[in-house]
Amino acid sequence: MNFCGVFPILATPFNADGSLDLESFDRLVRFNAGLGVDGVTVLGVLGESNRMLDREREALIAQAVAAAGGRTRVIVGASHPGTEATIGLCRMAQELGADAVMVAPSAEPVPNEGRVFDYFQKIAAAGLLPIVAQDHPASTQVHMSLPLLLRLVAEIPAIACIKEEGVPTPVRVAALKQGMGERRVPVLTGLGALYGYFDLLVGADGFNTGFAFPEVLLAINRAAQAGDHAESFRLYAKYLPLLVFEQQPGVAVRKELLRMRGLLRTPHVRHPGAAIAESAAAQLRDVVARVLPGVDITRAIVP
Amino acid sequence: MNFCGVFPILATPFNADGSLDLESFDRLVRFNAGLGVDGVTVLGVLGESNRMLDREREALIAQAVAAAGGRTRVIVGASHPGTEATIGLCRMAQELGADAVMVAPSAEPVPNEGRVFDYFQKIAAAGLLPIVAQDHPASTQVHMSLPLLLRLVAEIPAIACIKEEGVPTPVRVAALKQGMGERRVPVLTGLGALYGYFDLLVGADGFNTGFAFPEVLLAINRAAQAGDHAESFRLYAKYLPLLVFEQQPGVAVRKELLRMRGLLRTPHVRHPGAAIAESAAAQLRDVVARVLPGVDITRAIVP
Amino acid sequence: MNFCGVFPILATPFNADGSLDLESFDRLVRFNAGLGVDGVTVLGVLGESNRMLDREREALIAQAVAAAGGRTRVIVGASHPGTEATIGLCRMAQELGADAVMVAPSAEPVPNEGRVFDYFQKIAAAGLLPIVAQDHPASTQVHMSLPLLLRLVAEIPAIACIKEEGVPTPVRVAALKQGMGERRVPVLTGLGALYGYFDLLVGADGFNTGFAFPEVLLAINRAAQAGDHAESFRLYAKYLPLLVFEQQPGVAVRKELLRMRGLLRTPHVRHPGAAIAESAAAQLRDVVARVLPGVDITRAIVP
Amino acid sequence: MNFCGVFPILATPFNADGSLDLESFDRLVRFNAGLGVDGVTVLGVLGESNRMLDREREALIAQAVAAAGGRTRVIVGASHPGTEATIGLCRMAQELGADAVMVAPSAEPVPNEGRVFDYFQKIAAAGLLPIVAQDHPASTQVHMSLPLLLRLVAEIPAIACIKEEGVPTPVRVAALKQGMGERRVPVLTGLGALYGYFDLLVGADGFNTGFAFPEVLLAINRAAQAGDHAESFRLYAKYLPLLVFEQQPGVAVRKELLRMRGLLRTPHVRHPGAAIAESAAAQLRDVVARVLPGVDITRAIVP
Repeated sequence: MNFCGVFPILATPFNADGSLDLESFDRLVRFNAGLGVDGVTVLGVLGESNRMLDREREALIAQAVAAAGGRTRVIVGASHPGTEATIGLCRMAQELGADAVMVAPSAEPVPNEGRVFDYFQKIAAAGLLPIVAQDHPASTQVHMSLPLLLRLVAEIPAIACIKEEGVPTPVRVAALKQGMGERRVPVLTGLGALYGYFDLLVGADGFNTGFAFPEVLLAINRAAQAGDHAESFRLYAKYLPLLVFEQQPGVAVRKELLRMRGLLRTPHVRHPGAAIAESAAAQLRDVVARVLPGVDITRAIVP
Repeated sequence: MNFCGVFPILATPFNADGSLDLESFDRLVRFNAGLGVDGVTVLGVLGESNRMLDREREALIAQAVAAAGGRTRVIVGASHPGTEATIGLCRMAQELGADAVMVAPSAEPVPNEGRVFDYFQKIAAAGLLPIVAQDHPASTQVHMSLPLLLRLVAEIPAIACIKEEGVPTPVRVAALKQGMGERRVPVLTGLGALYGYFDLLVGADGFNTGFAFPEVLLAINRAAQAGDHAESFRLYAKYLPLLVFEQQPGVAVRKELLRMRGLLRTPHVRHPGAAIAESAAAQLRDVVARVLPGVDITRAIVP
Repeated sequence: MNFCGVFPILATPFNADGSLDLESFDRLVRFNAGLGVDGVTVLGVLGESNRMLDREREALIAQAVAAAGGRTRVIVGASHPGTEATIGLCRMAQELGADAVMVAPSAEPVPNEGRVFDYFQKIAAAGLLPIVAQDHPASTQVHMSLPLLLRLVAEIPAIACIKEEGVPTPVRVAALKQGMGERRVPVLTGLGALYGYFDLLVGADGFNTGFAFPEVLLAINRAAQAGDHAESFRLYAKYLPLLVFEQQPGVAVRKELLRMRGLLRTPHVRHPGAAIAESAAAQLRDVVARVLPGVDITRAIVP
Repeated sequence: MNFCGVFPILATPFNADGSLDLESFDRLVRFNAGLGVDGVTVLGVLGESNRMLDREREALIAQAVAAAGGRTRVIVGASHPGTEATIGLCRMAQELGADAVMVAPSAEPVPNEGRVFDYFQKIAAAGLLPIVAQDHPASTQVHMSLPLLLRLVAEIPAIACIKEEGVPTPVRVAALKQGMGERRVPVLTGLGALYGYFDLLVGADGFNTGFAFPEVLLAINRAAQAGDHAESFRLYAKYLPLLVFEQQPGVAVRKELLRMRGLLRTPHVRHPGAAIAESAAAQLRDVVARVLPGVDITRAIVP
């Protein structure tokens, strides 16, 4: 599996009563596959994976694999505070037919980089799916140093990709690309594409992040990988108000936008996550109208 | 169910390979029941509940209920970052025959006391087991104010007990006892009994915490509830070096001591939790020998 | 003093050896005054106030007041973990001729909103300058609830303005504007203007934040206050890539840009703050060239 | 200067109005000197150094040096978020006649061990007083790894001592003692002596911490350094209820006890630090009466 490209993090749709809305999830996966993304990532942080029971995870993975139908890859977020449990979640993903897992370290009372390395090594030793190592200090509270990340790449062949979300991302992406030795893996950027243009400019190999318009991520990445940074910038700048608006904490804004696009039936966020405020929903309509005047967003847009 | 008394938090035993050691768990529950504790709490923070898959939780709860055999009550830690999932874990506990659940709030990016109240109210509304509301900011990163705790007690009948572990515990326990109005519930103290004497002195109704010698917690509480604070202090002071030694981060010290007592087969802590350092194991033997010279700790001790 | 308008947070210039560069500071204040800002704020978080000795604070305040020369107002960041010391810093500001102080609460081991209220009340009781109450949880670790902020406004007349930087800012600004009763004060937005358009759209009364192009903040605010949200959006969107690039942690990017503008002699950040990486400096030149092609940024620009 | 021994961290006395009570401070220093401590540390975390203006720091240092009168050493807490400012505080300490400084690193948005090393190296390069490097993650939020601490010792001759307060302290003290190579420095323990017996057992060279009965720290350390661990344990266990009671957050308990001892005129803690609750003051009298029945604590006690 090639980890260069665009791998949107999917939201998890819920019905108004908080139960899984697998039908919308199916639609979401198919929509992304239809856009030609290189894969989808389910059960990421903004997929509200931390608000799910294990059997719900199973249902979501199975649905994603079925909906992908081999047309696109399925990466499964499998991070868990316990190493054995992480391995259990990786096994679940493998058995259900996923293509890769995404794993981030978890914070311990006494931070210890050796133990973070061991965490990844033990998961790799289980001999399961390729691993996207996620570096997202904002959610994990684990600050992996660049030497640690480079050591993970050099010594653990199961690590197939780095998802870099530690700020400043452009500096860290550049350092990773320059620091990797014989063994090299793709570096994807996340953080809702906030620094997307800049990360791609220093060599990021694509996106692994959520945004309600994956077609825009595809277009920005296509331009950047072709070396057309003027076009990459133009697209990035055009959509930046929307990217920024989605940066607000939680996933409510993105879900409302996915609802506006006809992909989710409801913008329901599981409690205790915040629902979208009415004032925010109004602003969202405003900014969509300003960025995409007259465009029918219920269809794939032309960025 | 009466929530006054001593409710030890049980460690979760593992085999050397990290798998559940249900046989030791069975022994641990029976040992506690035999001591006459008022109940046991399984899947607490130091029961490494956060390193468990759901199906492992099921196995542990079922084993605890079976081992308790009606001789003692079983409280199940059911905290989960998502409210629906917490309810799911509470339902699991109920279906497996547990007597109560212990629930703590989870941190959200933007703290909001109203949402913490809603969290407990939604769980209560599911109409399942009585709830021990746990206030443990050190692990949850949620600082519940005293007014919030009092409101939980006043307005949510399913909340049957407060487990108070916010420092300074003696001040907070006193304030809770004084602040409760018409509806009153027991207040138990935790934190490994570090401030146990002081908490009981201001009216705590017992212990809900782990310690490798539950018989000591029983004796301290018995003295305190009888108003014999001199005896409560004597016992507390005698065992304080052990209580303090167990305060070190993680659960490795306690598990090693439980192993020394013949209750666990191994002191294994699930990765990435820290195993006990050899120097710490030596110190543990030293302090046990100093506090309990010549005592056979593989049997229930006479405090 | 009227707290509606644009009040840039000024960087503190240093020489290459880390000593204060008062000459550049003087130039920076005059440049801002010349643009017609409503006031400047010195010794804010990104003014590296936490890396300053008290006598350096004195020198900076005196210089700012002299350079402002009555043409613009001077607000002085005076937050300090101790209440008496905060009052001492407020007195210093007053004695040196400043017009107002900006104060944020400091985190205590046990969060307590009553104590935060007392903090502001005690400072107000000292009878010194008007207070801009800063709500910036990202730097203070103090999450002030909306009821607390509204109570501060209602009960403490010395509080003359709220600087709202708790995310989601548009939702909080809206709630503040709607929630204020008889006593009303302006609400300014910060966070490097990241959500500036959205904050102004719901009624923010201006900016109190840093950006290397204060003339842009003035233009965005002018449009928004005139109700021309299309123009406000156009300007915001145009400069958003720069605003976002400056969001990277620390103040190094902004200082380099101020250097490029001829305002600072060096982009020196005091240790242990991070200096700008060479790759980031290159990206900064790139984004400036894309946003402002052919523009001489060493003069005030026409946004 | 020899950094083995007992170096109490002194409280900073205030009058009821929050101003410095230099007379009590003088008494406190003389009392400690009279007990034969190896030095006193002023302006530590529990000396409320973070609630002080620079000119107050000057007054306290000058008073401490005068009161010590050469009979005991004076170490000055000089930590500051900015490196230049830390150096400024170290210079202040030197010019006022102190013997050493105590310095802890400060947290930056992106943790970076290289920068922590640079921080100490820059301070050392200023060629001022010997440095006690403080490792206290609970207050600094900086987790220094053991390799970093060992590198500080090996490469920076100005670092004369490590104050180890990262839990588990006994494990870390043991690792430091074993890990130091050619260049060796004393390792002192802190944390209010909570783990004092255990830290000394693995080779800690003394105490650098606060406790209202420094004579007890002296006696415990004397026994431990003489290899009489039974006596060290006996004393530690005897006073452990008091040591534990003082562990409650803030310095209010300690100050009340110092007041009871006749050393402070008031137990005033600077706002926003918490004053002692009346229930806590009552418990303090209770525990003192139980640990030291009939003893006149206004004089030096015989442990």
